[in-house]
Amino acid sequence: MTIGVLAAQGFAAGATTAGIKPSGKSDMALVVNEGPEFNAAGVFTRNRVKAAPVKWSQKIIADGSLHALVINAGNANACNGAQGDEDAQAMAEATAQALGVDGTDVAVCSTGLIGEPMPMDKVLAGIESVTKLGAAGNDAAMAIMTTDTVSKEVGVEGNGWTLGGMGKGVGMMAPNLATMLVCLTTDAKVTPKALRAALEAASAVTFNTLDVDGSTSTNDTVIIMANGASGVEPTQEELNAAVLEACAGLADMMQADAEGVTKRVKITVEGADSDAEALNAARTIGRDNLFKCAMFGSDPNWGRVLAAVGMADAAMEPEKISVFFNDQPVCVNSTSAPGARDVDLSGEDIDVRVDLGTGGPGSAFVRTTDLSHAYVEINSAYSS
Amino acid sequence: MTIGVLAAQGFAAGATTAGIKPSGKSDMALVVNEGPEFNAAGVFTRNRVKAAPVKWSQKIIADGSLHALVINAGNANACNGAQGDEDAQAMAEATAQALGVDGTDVAVCSTGLIGEPMPMDKVLAGIESVTKLGAAGNDAAMAIMTTDTVSKEVGVEGNGWTLGGMGKGVGMMAPNLATMLVCLTTDAKVTPKALRAALEAASAVTFNTLDVDGSTSTNDTVIIMANGASGVEPTQEELNAAVLEACAGLADMMQADAEGVTKRVKITVEGADSDAEALNAARTIGRDNLFKCAMFGSDPNWGRVLAAVGMADAAMEPEKISVFFNDQPVCVNSTSAPGARDVDLSGEDIDVRVDLGTGGPGSAFVRTTDLSHAYVEINSAYSS
Repeated sequence: MTIGVLAAQGFAAGATTAGIKPSGKSDMALVVNEGPEFNAAGVFTRNRVKAAPVKWSQKIIADGSLHALVINAGNANACNGAQGDEDAQAMAEATAQALGVDGTDVAVCSTGLIGEPMPMDKVLAGIESVTKLGAAGNDAAMAIMTTDTVSKEVGVEGNGWTLGGMGKGVGMMAPNLATMLVCLTTDAKVTPKALRAALEAASAVTFNTLDVDGSTSTNDTVIIMANGASGVEPTQEELNAAVLEACAGLADMMQADAEGVTKRVKITVEGADSDAEALNAARTIGRDNLFKCAMFGSDPNWGRVLAAVGMADAAMEPEKISVFFNDQPVCVNSTSAPGARDVDLSGEDIDVRVDLGTGGPGSAFVRTTDLSHAYVEINSAYSS
Repeated sequence: MTIGVLAAQGFAAGATTAGIKPSGKSDMALVVNEGPEFNAAGVFTRNRVKAAPVKWSQKIIADGSLHALVINAGNANACNGAQGDEDAQAMAEATAQALGVDGTDVAVCSTGLIGEPMPMDKVLAGIESVTKLGAAGNDAAMAIMTTDTVSKEVGVEGNGWTLGGMGKGVGMMAPNLATMLVCLTTDAKVTPKALRAALEAASAVTFNTLDVDGSTSTNDTVIIMANGASGVEPTQEELNAAVLEACAGLADMMQADAEGVTKRVKITVEGADSDAEALNAARTIGRDNLFKCAMFGSDPNWGRVLAAVGMADAAMEPEKISVFFNDQPVCVNSTSAPGARDVDLSGEDIDVRVDLGTGGPGSAFVRTTDLSHAYVEINSAYSS
């Protein structure tokens, strides 16, 4: 199956090396919707400190219409004040001019270092190059990588229509997005409202359940564009399913490529009063550094799960908490289960399930990673 | 000046090697108040999962009276169910019997691995030995260490009276205590109510501002005992000042000895609507792993401060945030200040100050540490 932003009909891509990344690797990508329709939707970081391109894109996508998305890596254009806002708008307008569309129909994403002025001479030269288009989808996916070790692309076949996409993201994966950028494209005939509904539902159970380090970026953006080129109008359910599959695929790749990851850990909390409380408890465990270090050491130290969950904003029965590692009970009614210390956690995937003991119907899960030497190394040595 | 739990008149200490620590080091301590008064107060972990000795001690200290505190390291007696509760009580009663007092006048503290049954044969033999007393204060301080690299003792001279104490704690230092145990002793003539007021006020600005890794223990306990042996009755202000000095001294030692620490970081937040919102913002920054890794790397990456603070539950002006590293402005009105990347953070102490830009009067601080390779090493290799 074809994957990437060109999997669907009627899209074109550009990629170039503008010289923004110190590494000299390609660092600018463009995805252009060639119509006939130009419907779009986006979801954005909930961090109060929003990068200039986020503010720009959030504003111009509100009308549900978008012709193109230009992305640069190597500089986040965040915390650059009024100059940053001007630069984001200038990027949209230069791209729009080259494509012959309105500036307010071009969204902008930036990822990289915060608080560095955008090198606009390089950026504008890059836009001149990237708007020549003709790039493969994977070229675009490569150009948006930062500390990603692999490019990330997906494709989903509908009944006569296709949805594809690309993403980047490895660290700072927290609820309400991550240092992650995703661009999805489809040739289905769907309204902006349908796109928004599908994207919000899918994000809630994919990107928003990724919580690698509790940090949330100033730049997180997921954008979907639809051109109706297939002529096929899927139902909302069909659209939801395809968007979910695409987002789940990209989220899996981000978790697997998370900075310094040696373990992928899924934490499910059950027996909570509500799903919201279960989610709070799952996140509290997933963000606990002592728990994450134990996972790195393949140590079935369930005591750290109890110590962490005890701090969650969730009703629980402190004497009736149960914990399962890889489906094996290690703690029952808040005390050790036989063989608890012998559970094998040496594999790459670890499943943690916690029952809060309230008997309530609430459940939720998050996906996180271990806390490894490599995480510290990458994040202390790399200014990002 | 004399330091430790024997700095004040009328206290005795015991220390022994019961064989609970696998290392074979001393692992049991006893502090006995010899009167004439037996007033006491305590503050305890707010974790909902409380260790058996916490539940016991919290209950029996409620009447403001205490004769002795017995402490073991090597086993936390947490998450051991009804057996754990029985064991904690049995420790108190065995100690009380040897000392000729009531079981309900003996508090118990345990620190170490969670979820392991207490080796009661060893513990009871240890109690037989430790109640022989005659140990130096430092012997007791050594016996309660776990991953501490140094013993921690303080002493404060009042006007004709003395306050001393010992503590242990290196990791899991989070608001509302840490994996920390503190025993303070004084020969001042003070009521349980005065002790409680002094202890709560001091804890709020010392132990509760330490946030090494966002984790909070099941076992955290701070106990103060007063016997009036000096015959001197300090004012509440004098008592408050001495308890604050003792707690601040122990908190400093804990921060300096935090697991894997290479940097001590103080984060002050100002310009918030309220002190509570300032504290929330300071903690959000102090718990952000990306920020903590940057500190380890001596990297003046203020963008991570903004990305972190943007997620705090605090009102802020996203375009008017300022950040100072070691009193040098690195970010003004949410944009880079001249020379921001050149600030020298190579020293062991880093001062971070953030103004949220609301113009409000709220301010607060927390103290944390960097996130280092050694932190990961200690916490993945050591089952604690």
